[in-house]
Amino acid sequence: MKKAVVLLSGGLDSATVLAIARDQGFQCYALSVDYGQRHRSELAAAQKVAQSLGACRHQVIKLDLTAFGGSALTDQAIEIPTTGEKTEIPVTYVPARNTIMLSLALAWAETLQSQDIFVGVNAVDYSGYPDCRQEYIAAFERMANLATKAGVEGKKLTIHALLMHLSKKEIIQTGLALGVDFSLTVSCYQADFEGRACGVCDSCRIRKAGFAAAGIADPTYYWSS
Amino acid sequence: MKKAVVLLSGGLDSATVLAIARDQGFQCYALSVDYGQRHRSELAAAQKVAQSLGACRHQVIKLDLTAFGGSALTDQAIEIPTTGEKTEIPVTYVPARNTIMLSLALAWAETLQSQDIFVGVNAVDYSGYPDCRQEYIAAFERMANLATKAGVEGKKLTIHALLMHLSKKEIIQTGLALGVDFSLTVSCYQADFEGRACGVCDSCRIRKAGFAAAGIADPTYYWSS
Repeated sequence: MKKAVVLLSGGLDSATVLAIARDQGFQCYALSVDYGQRHRSELAAAQKVAQSLGACRHQVIKLDLTAFGGSALTDQAIEIPTTGEKTEIPVTYVPARNTIMLSLALAWAETLQSQDIFVGVNAVDYSGYPDCRQEYIAAFERMANLATKAGVEGKKLTIHALLMHLSKKEIIQTGLALGVDFSLTVSCYQADFEGRACGVCDSCRIRKAGFAAAGIADPTYYWSS
Repeated sequence: MKKAVVLLSGGLDSATVLAIARDQGFQCYALSVDYGQRHRSELAAAQKVAQSLGACRHQVIKLDLTAFGGSALTDQAIEIPTTGEKTEIPVTYVPARNTIMLSLALAWAETLQSQDIFVGVNAVDYSGYPDCRQEYIAAFERMANLATKAGVEGKKLTIHALLMHLSKKEIIQTGLALGVDFSLTVSCYQADFEGRACGVCDSCRIRKAGFAAAGIADPTYYWSS
């Protein structure tokens, strides 16, 4: 069985990615990063998701990105936007987060002698995030193949970003078809410690709209419910 | 004054890089990573070097790479080679280390609105490390420019890897000319907690030979002395 490293945030997208990797026959090593995010309950969600989708291991790596700040997700002084207004690059953008997470996945993949990394980046809903574009992923893959032993030995490493061009509706439909229990996942930027969502941050709005568009009852636990 | 992020390990190469960045007129933000390395005294060395070369800030980021293992530097079960024998890729290679460190530097640079990252990678002495080659650095730079806000806005980020093609002798000469106090630096893979070196690991051998080739008295503190 081929091994894959799957970046698992605890949200809806990466849960679907884990289900896809498993469906493709990979033995899945799920990786989450405890980077000082506000919504720490996503880490507990990631653990439940990893278990429910049969990951052979779930590793949480600690990395304190609050030292850098610069994002509403890692700096308590910056408020989470809840009005639904669009800005060019939202304050919830964490500088270089995908690059850091993919680098950590790369380190683990190299140790495991895996040539496959799965990540749930998506260009549709997060069009303001520079590191959620296909050309970025392609550049990372190219760099990774120059960075590693495996690359030097001619074993190509692939970054699988299969959700890139799917809408939230399509991601939800794909996940459901592969047995994802979305009630385990947490998307909210300011989820409480039990994983209950605010319902009004950008991440909640996108998620809600996705379930509505898919015609599926929203399984999310909200503060108010 | 333009800001630069300088990756500072506490060794000879990165100390020289910091001196070069300062000499080029940059305001230097020194970044070290506490990744669970055996030779933790290099972090204390980094602090002294940052201070002595006038870095405006020195940030140590914690990241536990021992969770992945796969290297003699992060796995106590793998012995540090001391025979001086050449192997293709040495066991002291840490999977994806440069990629991870450059990613962290990228995150900080983005937060600081800096477009310059300095790193002491060198192709001459570490020819077995895939992530110490010019083509790797070029690929990282290209990826970084696609990953960030600054890149999207057309502000080019540069990865300065100025030591790439210098011999250890030339690095030592460059550092000395710019006022680096090499007695503060620690290169040894198994330095003790006071920073004293073993004298026989690959890193010590390369360093010793560098001082000899430069005709400079070796200022290193050794266990035996």
